[in-house]
Amino acid sequence: MKIARYQHQDGIHYGVLEGDCLQRLSGSPFDALVQDGATDRLDKVRLLCPLPAPRLFAVGMNYVGHIAEAGARTPEIPQFFMMPSTAAVGPDEPVIRPREAQVVHHEAELAIVIGRKGRRIAEAQALEHVFGYTCANDVSERVIQNREMPYGCLLIGKAFDTFCPLGPVIATGLDAGNLRVQASVNGTTRQDGHTSDLLFSVPFIISYLSQAVTLLPGDVILTGTPSGVGPLVGGDVCEITIEGIGTLRNPVVDEAA
Amino acid sequence: MKIARYQHQDGIHYGVLEGDCLQRLSGSPFDALVQDGATDRLDKVRLLCPLPAPRLFAVGMNYVGHIAEAGARTPEIPQFFMMPSTAAVGPDEPVIRPREAQVVHHEAELAIVIGRKGRRIAEAQALEHVFGYTCANDVSERVIQNREMPYGCLLIGKAFDTFCPLGPVIATGLDAGNLRVQASVNGTTRQDGHTSDLLFSVPFIISYLSQAVTLLPGDVILTGTPSGVGPLVGGDVCEITIEGIGTLRNPVVDEAA
Repeated sequence: MKIARYQHQDGIHYGVLEGDCLQRLSGSPFDALVQDGATDRLDKVRLLCPLPAPRLFAVGMNYVGHIAEAGARTPEIPQFFMMPSTAAVGPDEPVIRPREAQVVHHEAELAIVIGRKGRRIAEAQALEHVFGYTCANDVSERVIQNREMPYGCLLIGKAFDTFCPLGPVIATGLDAGNLRVQASVNGTTRQDGHTSDLLFSVPFIISYLSQAVTLLPGDVILTGTPSGVGPLVGGDVCEITIEGIGTLRNPVVDEAA
Repeated sequence: MKIARYQHQDGIHYGVLEGDCLQRLSGSPFDALVQDGATDRLDKVRLLCPLPAPRLFAVGMNYVGHIAEAGARTPEIPQFFMMPSTAAVGPDEPVIRPREAQVVHHEAELAIVIGRKGRRIAEAQALEHVFGYTCANDVSERVIQNREMPYGCLLIGKAFDTFCPLGPVIATGLDAGNLRVQASVNGTTRQDGHTSDLLFSVPFIISYLSQAVTLLPGDVILTGTPSGVGPLVGGDVCEITIEGIGTLRNPVVDEAA
């Protein structure tokens, strides 16, 4: 099942995508999946970021190929950091390349969407807490990131407004360990990885994070990016495609001077 | 003015503290400071975390004395990281020392509470975006933190549920550059610093963060801790006292096995 959040002329709704239509849900899918009977045509709505103001957790350096290209050492523990909700945007919304940007990279990532609250979740029960998955682009300003990380902290290089596109839908029922993850820029493939190459698996990531943090419905966890990260400049169109979810497309726009 | 959030028998309210009473506000103080006419006695309510689910930004290594005791190098840029909203608790709520904890430290910090939305805020206008200030205890598990930071990221060591007590009130109208910041454990003073020793000032921190992130009303920014951090164990009572705000008191309780 694919669930979208969208702007309709009469308001913002969640709905289940079926062909060219959305079966509108009453309320939030994190409360209950109840259809309210209305059907909205996909070409009459605008898809929004699937989560309105998510808590964004992210794991760095989680694919061997990306660790190699970044010249990093293989971590013994997941490298977690957080990003602010204001970084999240939806499909087709522009990624604003900030004025101070020097090297901005795309990072295609499978994002976990939590469906059920939990703390100290066992790895064997972790998937019971997953609502579904969406595509994420963990856009990163490398010069700033590389100034921050030697101090042992990371925020600004990842946190610019619009630096975390999510969407186009939340897909349920996927096998998260067996998905192709791709990024293209202006139609040329840049990243082409597979979640079977994750260093730390989806169940492990959820279990590990939840040892410290009570996970809440609607929380988003980015699981890391495969090799092939590369630059984004104004005018580019970046597409993140994940098997079973779809394509998250965002234009890149230079911030006004 | 001191503003508290509190549980009354008829619900949760914000109110202005006047002596032993709270002048109840209608709605959120981040919308408007309108008293609704009701007066609640302080001894009939329970003070809560002043923000219900805050975005928590934090700056590490922002006092010269703490940089020296941590053996860190003086940063050229603020060392920002985020913590999850689930870390926040209020006055008198227990700090739960997790089962896996080895070395848990208190960190007394002045916390900025944002009152007005803004992006790319100039340092000269930064204080116009401040609603007020509260006391924070940036509780930290050092063994985990010290495993994370060499990889360039920081989350778990700071993110455990209850690891960010805030309160007891939000105080407005303070000169943030001229406040004594203290921590005591079981009545013995451990930290006794002064915000005049901040490496990066409150206006600079707000301006710097807002170059990337749209700050929102209710956002909290912890400004770093002075020297004197030290261990917390089950049974301790930790008090953070900041001039003009008051004392944030939290018992420390070991997590059940």
